[in-house]
Amino acid sequence: MAWQRIYYCPPLSPSIRRSGGKSLAEYKCFQQRRIIVSNILSYNFDEYANMVTSFHGSPAPGVLIGGYMIDYAYKNLREGGEYDIICETAKCLPDAVQLLTPCSIGNRWLKIIDVGRYALIFYDKHSGMGVRVYLDWRLLDRWPQIKSWYLKLTPKAEQDEESLLREIKEARGDICRIEDVKVSLDALIKQKSSSISICPSCEEAYRSADGAICPACQGGILPYSRVNRIRCVRDKFHLSA
Amino acid sequence: MAWQRIYYCPPLSPSIRRSGGKSLAEYKCFQQRRIIVSNILSYNFDEYANMVTSFHGSPAPGVLIGGYMIDYAYKNLREGGEYDIICETAKCLPDAVQLLTPCSIGNRWLKIIDVGRYALIFYDKHSGMGVRVYLDWRLLDRWPQIKSWYLKLTPKAEQDEESLLREIKEARGDICRIEDVKVSLDALIKQKSSSISICPSCEEAYRSADGAICPACQGGILPYSRVNRIRCVRDKFHLSA
Repeated sequence: MAWQRIYYCPPLSPSIRRSGGKSLAEYKCFQQRRIIVSNILSYNFDEYANMVTSFHGSPAPGVLIGGYMIDYAYKNLREGGEYDIICETAKCLPDAVQLLTPCSIGNRWLKIIDVGRYALIFYDKHSGMGVRVYLDWRLLDRWPQIKSWYLKLTPKAEQDEESLLREIKEARGDICRIEDVKVSLDALIKQKSSSISICPSCEEAYRSADGAICPACQGGILPYSRVNRIRCVRDKFHLSA
Repeated sequence: MAWQRIYYCPPLSPSIRRSGGKSLAEYKCFQQRRIIVSNILSYNFDEYANMVTSFHGSPAPGVLIGGYMIDYAYKNLREGGEYDIICETAKCLPDAVQLLTPCSIGNRWLKIIDVGRYALIFYDKHSGMGVRVYLDWRLLDRWPQIKSWYLKLTPKAEQDEESLLREIKEARGDICRIEDVKVSLDALIKQKSSSISICPSCEEAYRSADGAICPACQGGILPYSRVNRIRCVRDKFHLSA
């Protein structure tokens, strides 16, 4: 599923996806023919920066660099896979994935395993084979603003935002490394096919596989308390089906 | 921040946000003036279903219902807050949030605490006060297709998709309940302001607050192994700043 969508429409923003797209092979030829510096898939830097601002709220450096990481990964993906994505940080990078690929957090083709590293894994959901792209601090000596941002060497207020964006645009994927990886599909937790129960404590529906009462009622996971019910119906209902 | 964006542009898709929007007060008047059944914020059902298909890959019932949940929450939000969102499931619902509000997983204004309940919490980031909207199975007797889908009473292959979408469109927010909540802001984990270290094991950058080595190297969290390095530079670099 995931790869079918990547395969048929690599320039992958919602609007582009609606109007069709290119196959991976077409995309690669397209990229080779164009001599445009700083392209991110089929977008130029400014187009992508506008998309990021719209979706993310600001042209955050992390989402911009994420665009080049995805572009770099695409250039190294093998034909014929069906790719899902794992993101190793919850900060910024997932939004680049959601803007440029068909993988979203809600459709579960994007998984976040937040270990705080700036890395993305594209893996074939059948074989587990894929690539991992990551931002490498050792490649940043040429790019002092990116280095300073990435390693938090200067406080945010003192960052020279304009120079930082210029460096990101010039550096493109050159600040990333790529490696082949094999994902253990067995290790990926699947929450599929659990039946649904009604929690005897909160009386809401939840995955039966999670236990005799829902996870929210099992422990202090959720950080809120009810203040006052609006439109609350106190009558007891029974599951009639 | 979050509320500023909600406040100034309630019809909140990326494209709408780009072209400006309405204040919450304007939005409420706007909604009252219109006598359009099945509106989701400023979109009609079909417009929203197209957005969902673009972003999520299919007009998934969960994302469609999520639209009405968000619409319902908006109608009950108090003026003047700056709202962030907590989603109680990772499935489908987060994509409705990302399509209709400025909160995304990458900008951290959307938090997912996956307890498997179909619920959204909008809370003011300063006071913690907010509302919780949830899909209530006890309100589904009038909507057999929605009930069957939500409680997984029939296998997916046997679902009558057309009837299901029609019921969702007719039911609108009537299948949801709302309650006032107070979120404990202290309990929300903040990952702010950690400095960055280089992990002595993998030599990648990570949040110093996570320990002496990065979380990925601390345990078997990540489900992949390296197969072969491409473009790997073996030289050791030292952090020069």
